[in-house]
Amino acid sequence: MSVIPGLEDVAIKYTSLTSIDGQKGILRYRGYDIKDLAYNAEYEEIVHLMFYGELPRHDELERTKKNIAEGYKVPDFVIQVIRTLSSDSDAVAMMETAFGAMATTEKNFAWSKEKDKEIALRIVGSTARVVAEIYRRKRDMPPSTIHEKSGNYSESFLNMCFGNINEKEKIDAMNKALILYVDHEVPASTTAALVASSTLSDMYSSITAALAALKGPLHGGAAEAAYNQFLQIGSPNNVEEWFKKNVMEGKKRLMGFGHRVYKTYDPRMLIFKEIAKKSISDEEGKKLLTVAEKLEELGVKQFSSKGIYPNTDFYSGLVFRYIGFPVDMFTALFALARVTGWLAHIMEYVEDQHRLIRPRAIYTGPERREYVPIEKR
Amino acid sequence: MSVIPGLEDVAIKYTSLTSIDGQKGILRYRGYDIKDLAYNAEYEEIVHLMFYGELPRHDELERTKKNIAEGYKVPDFVIQVIRTLSSDSDAVAMMETAFGAMATTEKNFAWSKEKDKEIALRIVGSTARVVAEIYRRKRDMPPSTIHEKSGNYSESFLNMCFGNINEKEKIDAMNKALILYVDHEVPASTTAALVASSTLSDMYSSITAALAALKGPLHGGAAEAAYNQFLQIGSPNNVEEWFKKNVMEGKKRLMGFGHRVYKTYDPRMLIFKEIAKKSISDEEGKKLLTVAEKLEELGVKQFSSKGIYPNTDFYSGLVFRYIGFPVDMFTALFALARVTGWLAHIMEYVEDQHRLIRPRAIYTGPERREYVPIEKR
Repeated sequence: MSVIPGLEDVAIKYTSLTSIDGQKGILRYRGYDIKDLAYNAEYEEIVHLMFYGELPRHDELERTKKNIAEGYKVPDFVIQVIRTLSSDSDAVAMMETAFGAMATTEKNFAWSKEKDKEIALRIVGSTARVVAEIYRRKRDMPPSTIHEKSGNYSESFLNMCFGNINEKEKIDAMNKALILYVDHEVPASTTAALVASSTLSDMYSSITAALAALKGPLHGGAAEAAYNQFLQIGSPNNVEEWFKKNVMEGKKRLMGFGHRVYKTYDPRMLIFKEIAKKSISDEEGKKLLTVAEKLEELGVKQFSSKGIYPNTDFYSGLVFRYIGFPVDMFTALFALARVTGWLAHIMEYVEDQHRLIRPRAIYTGPERREYVPIEKR
Repeated sequence: MSVIPGLEDVAIKYTSLTSIDGQKGILRYRGYDIKDLAYNAEYEEIVHLMFYGELPRHDELERTKKNIAEGYKVPDFVIQVIRTLSSDSDAVAMMETAFGAMATTEKNFAWSKEKDKEIALRIVGSTARVVAEIYRRKRDMPPSTIHEKSGNYSESFLNMCFGNINEKEKIDAMNKALILYVDHEVPASTTAALVASSTLSDMYSSITAALAALKGPLHGGAAEAAYNQFLQIGSPNNVEEWFKKNVMEGKKRLMGFGHRVYKTYDPRMLIFKEIAKKSISDEEGKKLLTVAEKLEELGVKQFSSKGIYPNTDFYSGLVFRYIGFPVDMFTALFALARVTGWLAHIMEYVEDQHRLIRPRAIYTGPERREYVPIEKR
């Protein structure tokens, strides 16, 4: 037995959810190409696809939407817990707190193939409410009063955040962003959720574990880091000098570039870029987009021969900004979408492949030692 | 590549913390036998041993105690969050919530070999306060006013729970129980903490992930389950019949028996049994202890040939009850001690062996499918 650093290439489960071809830049959910889904489907269809295996018919979609909408009504004490946290709190840690709070009522969570999916759908709804309330808490806004609308997830979520927005293009961008971030096999956050669920802990706690992992800068924070890089550069005229000074000479990492799996363009990044180019019309946004495009060009020229390309997080921040979100919400928005993937993975694992996850460690410490009382040390 | 169910026998890290010989029933922390430590050391010495590698000298122990004691003062909003939760909440999920709340102030947690240990010591202190406040919330008692005493961890913790107790024997039992539960290599909870910390998430979030895994009945709930079994049996006269009916004929699992690693007596169980036998003097406690001993005898007679023996959780509940805790706090008390092991493991991993934990999944789902619009499904 020897240690496998980072569990690289160790398979923790089978999955029929997501397949990735990192060489060709292909991402599919249950066999459907990510681009087809992002451009044609409603987010709730994807939730249904991930949980049930097939795209829904009309009546199935209605039922799924109804279950999700029930989740918008989270218990009052959860909202109170969010309000107790400071407005400058980390948004993902606020989500951990809220999910921990929701887990407090789950003393004896009974996993069951019959009921799991309905609970999971409600959790998808609750996540929208929780993230919206976190957004509002961080802006010192009162709790949302709109949360019983079942029509469309993206619209409901944006309404909970901003009040009635009625901007079709922003709702559409939100819908696409959610679909793009739904799942990506078993990164650290999904692995943490699997480990927690393998003890038959409850679904809320499993999501809490995933959030705890997502919070790290090596995982969920990349969109924020890429966007902050654009802000730091400030103007299209500065890109070349910044790149030379920081990346070429300073050996700083180019944020939003490179991926353990993709060795070519990340297909999600291409779609985020299209959304950004199509939608952004304000001056500041256009400036940042031009910075991003110039930076992408330089980065690709420099690194593509090593298989390092822009990843999904490179343009997503610009899309989130266009929709109306500040940078400190980007990782929480990632989590909002990914909760669907986490839930789909833990259900697949617990229902069909369950085994307690218990790896080993290899002992390299001292041999047996005699205890010495403190007086004689 | 094929799936390794439960990651069994996959080594996730090296460790110089804890070694287990499951065949011989040996458990050592950094080379010291668990029995030597439990009978001779103060809990804070073990915390120091786990974090720094050696048992402390007097001055080192004083510094470690001072750092721990600073953690007793957790921010007011964390106490408020705990008070917002219902009194019949799950205690471990309340801990998840409290640790999530503590993580909200950690926007850019900087892991550093120089500072990690001091932060970890404060977290050990904060955990005592958090568990005490959870105990008090669940009993509808007001928050503790005693939390600045630095003298002794077990005494401080019990004082925070119960007010000034001044019962040397109970403090001593608490001290031993804490030492026994400090670490046990990399079970699911520790693995979850490792996965979270591998993204360079903060320490509080990593503990949150561990708690989420501990909450599951296959992990942290065993002491509670074993104790409830004794309650259910009720009287020593019922043991034989209960055993025959439930375990022999009913094929019910005997709770508190069996362990993936130990194939003989768990050395911690033997110590818990000694504490229980030495300390318990009330009638109800004595009755339950006799039930437990009779059940142990029958269980060993029946199962020892298969390597199934009573584990650490078999008698620990009786000790927790003797100290004064109700059954719904048992798993939180386990967590209180184990937080030291979790912290020691994540520091060892991030400081010396760091790599993002990112296993793979093997795709078994459908091949490429064409998207069909909802009207045509």
